[in-house]
Amino acid sequence: MTDPTIELARDLIRRPSVTPDDQGCQALIGGRIAPLGFAIESLRFAEVDNLWAVHGDRGPLFVFAGHTDVVPTGEAARWTYPPFGAEIHGGRLYGRGAADMKGSVAAFVTATERFLARQPEPAFRLGYLITSDEEGPAQHGTKRMMQWLREKGISIDWCLVGEPSSRNRLGDEFKIGRRGSITGNLVIEGRQGHVAYPHLADNPVHRAAPFLAELVAIEWDEGNAHFPPSTLQIANIQAGTGANNVIPGEMSVQFNLRFNTETSVEAIQARVEELLKRHGLAYRIDWHLSGVPFLTRDDGPMVGAVERAVEGVLGTAPTPSTAGGTSDGRFIAPTGAQVIELGPLNATIHQIDEHVAVEDLKTLSTIYERLLDELDAEARRLAG
Amino acid sequence: MTDPTIELARDLIRRPSVTPDDQGCQALIGGRIAPLGFAIESLRFAEVDNLWAVHGDRGPLFVFAGHTDVVPTGEAARWTYPPFGAEIHGGRLYGRGAADMKGSVAAFVTATERFLARQPEPAFRLGYLITSDEEGPAQHGTKRMMQWLREKGISIDWCLVGEPSSRNRLGDEFKIGRRGSITGNLVIEGRQGHVAYPHLADNPVHRAAPFLAELVAIEWDEGNAHFPPSTLQIANIQAGTGANNVIPGEMSVQFNLRFNTETSVEAIQARVEELLKRHGLAYRIDWHLSGVPFLTRDDGPMVGAVERAVEGVLGTAPTPSTAGGTSDGRFIAPTGAQVIELGPLNATIHQIDEHVAVEDLKTLSTIYERLLDELDAEARRLAG
Repeated sequence: MTDPTIELARDLIRRPSVTPDDQGCQALIGGRIAPLGFAIESLRFAEVDNLWAVHGDRGPLFVFAGHTDVVPTGEAARWTYPPFGAEIHGGRLYGRGAADMKGSVAAFVTATERFLARQPEPAFRLGYLITSDEEGPAQHGTKRMMQWLREKGISIDWCLVGEPSSRNRLGDEFKIGRRGSITGNLVIEGRQGHVAYPHLADNPVHRAAPFLAELVAIEWDEGNAHFPPSTLQIANIQAGTGANNVIPGEMSVQFNLRFNTETSVEAIQARVEELLKRHGLAYRIDWHLSGVPFLTRDDGPMVGAVERAVEGVLGTAPTPSTAGGTSDGRFIAPTGAQVIELGPLNATIHQIDEHVAVEDLKTLSTIYERLLDELDAEARRLAG
Repeated sequence: MTDPTIELARDLIRRPSVTPDDQGCQALIGGRIAPLGFAIESLRFAEVDNLWAVHGDRGPLFVFAGHTDVVPTGEAARWTYPPFGAEIHGGRLYGRGAADMKGSVAAFVTATERFLARQPEPAFRLGYLITSDEEGPAQHGTKRMMQWLREKGISIDWCLVGEPSSRNRLGDEFKIGRRGSITGNLVIEGRQGHVAYPHLADNPVHRAAPFLAELVAIEWDEGNAHFPPSTLQIANIQAGTGANNVIPGEMSVQFNLRFNTETSVEAIQARVEELLKRHGLAYRIDWHLSGVPFLTRDDGPMVGAVERAVEGVLGTAPTPSTAGGTSDGRFIAPTGAQVIELGPLNATIHQIDEHVAVEDLKTLSTIYERLLDELDAEARRLAG
C-alpha cells in the first residue's frame, strides 16, 4: 500500500488533532506543497492554527478549503481498531477523521502534486485554506481567516470544501449550498408559587402552551428549486424546580431554525416576536446566528466544472444538494465566492469506527485533479 | 415567662427534630400526659416515631392530631435568632416549628392538663396521634398509624389537627376540609434526531404542544359551596439534550391537580388519558395520589364545637375554609372521622424566622381547653 494519498491520509490520522489542537497536521501539509511553489502562511488565532497557501499570481483564485481538526473519539475501547491507528482492513482505512476530513485533505495535496507536475503554470491561482477549528466553536478558524483575507485584499473566486458530501457511493451528491441556521433562546416569564394557590402565581408553561402550539405549526416558506422548506425545531425546553408542588417561575425554550434563501433572519425574528406579543407573553429572547444560507448557482463555472470532473472520472454526474447541517462554506460564500462541497461518504462521520474506502480516496484525488484541469481550461477561456 | 404552654413549646423547639428525627419530643409529650391517666404507645415504623395515647374508655373518641417533625431550617446564619434557640423577642417565640406545629402540640398538652384537672372523668375518650413524618414522605406516620388503629379496631369520631390554620389573626379561619392532590408523571415519546433532518425524527415537544394548550385550558368543575374549583398546574417540564442541534427523543411533563369533591380520581385520569389519545400521542403516564379530598360538614358536632370554642374565647366565630395544601387530615378523614384543623397563624411557616406570638399560643391553649368542654357537653348529650 504505497499510494501517496493513502499514505498522507494515514500520516494525518495518526496525529490526534482533536479540535482545536492541530498536532502538526498543517506543517505536514505545508511541507508537502511548499516545494511545489506555494507561499505558506501559518496564522494562529487564539488556540486555533490556520494555514493559508497560494500558488501563482494571475487568474481567478481557486481554493481547496478544509480542516485538520477532528471530533473526539468517545471511548476508544469501543472502536474495532484504534481511532488514531489509521489501520487498513478489508479495503477500508479506519480512524477518526478518515472521512471528515483528513482523507479529503490528503486528496487535495496529491491531486495538486500531479496537476502541477503536468501543468506548472496554470491560468488560475491555486490556494489552500485549512483550519483546526471547524468542528468546534468555529470562531477563530475559517471565519477569522476570511476577515484576514479581506484585510489583505484577497478575494476567493472559486472554492471546493472537502466535506464528505457523498451519500451512498462516492460522488453521488455534491453540495451547492447550505441552509442557514439560527437559534432562539427564549425565556417565558411567570411568577413562582405553590400549586395549591395558583391565583397567587402565574404559570409560564400554561401561558406559553398556546404560543408553542402555534409556533411549531408555522409554515415558514415552501422552499424553492434548490432548498427544502425552512423548518423550526424546539431542541430544549425546561421549567420547574423538580418539586411537584411548586409552580415554576419561568420556562426556557431553545429552538433552532434551518432556513433557506426564501426567508431572512429579520423575517424569522419578526415573526417569532409578533407571535410572542400577540400571545401577551412576558419574555426575554436572544438570538444566535450560526450562518445565513448560501447557494452557488450554475451561472458560474464551479458547478459545471465539478459536474464534469465527477462525470469524467465516474461516468455519472453528481446530484446537487443543499441538505444537511452547516459547514465552513457559510463563511466563504458571503464574500461572493462560488462554493461547492465534494468529498467522501458521510455515513460514518462523527461515529465509532469512522472509515473511508481506500479506493474511494484514490478516486477522490483523481476527481480533484480533474477539477483542477477543468478550472484551468475555464480560466484560459475567461482570459480570452 | 413561666406560662406552661410557652415553656413546653420552647422545650420542643430546642429539639432539632427535622423529619423524621423526633429527637425525644414524643417522650416529652408522653411524659407529660401519662400522669394524667393516658395509656401511651410508642410505635416506630421504618425511621418514623409515632405516639398513640388514649385517656378514658367510654364515649366518642376525640383525638388531638399533630406532628413533632419540622422542615429544615435552611441556612441557620440567615435567621435573626437561632432556629432551635426558642428565643422570645418582642412578644414572639422564634424557632423552627414554633407555628408548624410544636406550639399547637404544647397547647394540646396544657389544655388537656387544665381540662382534666377540672373534669377528671369526661364523657368522651381523649386521644393523641402524634407523628414525626408529616413534613416528609408521610408514609410511615399518620397513614401507617391509621392502618394500625384499624387493625386494633379503634375508630376516631372527632379529630382536631393542630395545623396553623389562621390567616391574619388567631382563630380567623379553620379548615373543615382539604382538596385532594394527585400528580401525573407523563412522558411524551418521540424519536431523537438532528435538527437538520426533521423528517427522520419526531419531536415530542411539537407533538405535545396542542395537547398541553388544551390540558391547561380545561375547566375541571366549578367548585361548590365548600370548595373552589379544581385546578391543574404543570410543575415540571423537560425535553432536550442541552445541544441546540438535537431533536429530543422524549419530553417529560409533571402536573399536579388540587381537586374538590365535585370530581374524582377516576374522572381526572379518564379525562387526561382521553385527551392524550385524541391528540394521537405516544405516551407513558403514572399517577401518584397524595390524598383524596375530605369535607367535614356541620351535620356533626365538630364544626359547631370548634366554632363555639373560638367564639367563646375570642368573641368572633372562625370562617370555615378548605383552601391550601394537604395535611395529615387526608389520612384520618376517610375512616369517617370528623376532622377539623385549627392552629396559629401560618404566615411564617417553612420560612426563615418562623415564629408565633406568645399571647396567641396561650390563647390557643384556652381555645383547645374550651373545645374539650364543648365536646364533653356534646358527649353527654349524645349519651342521653
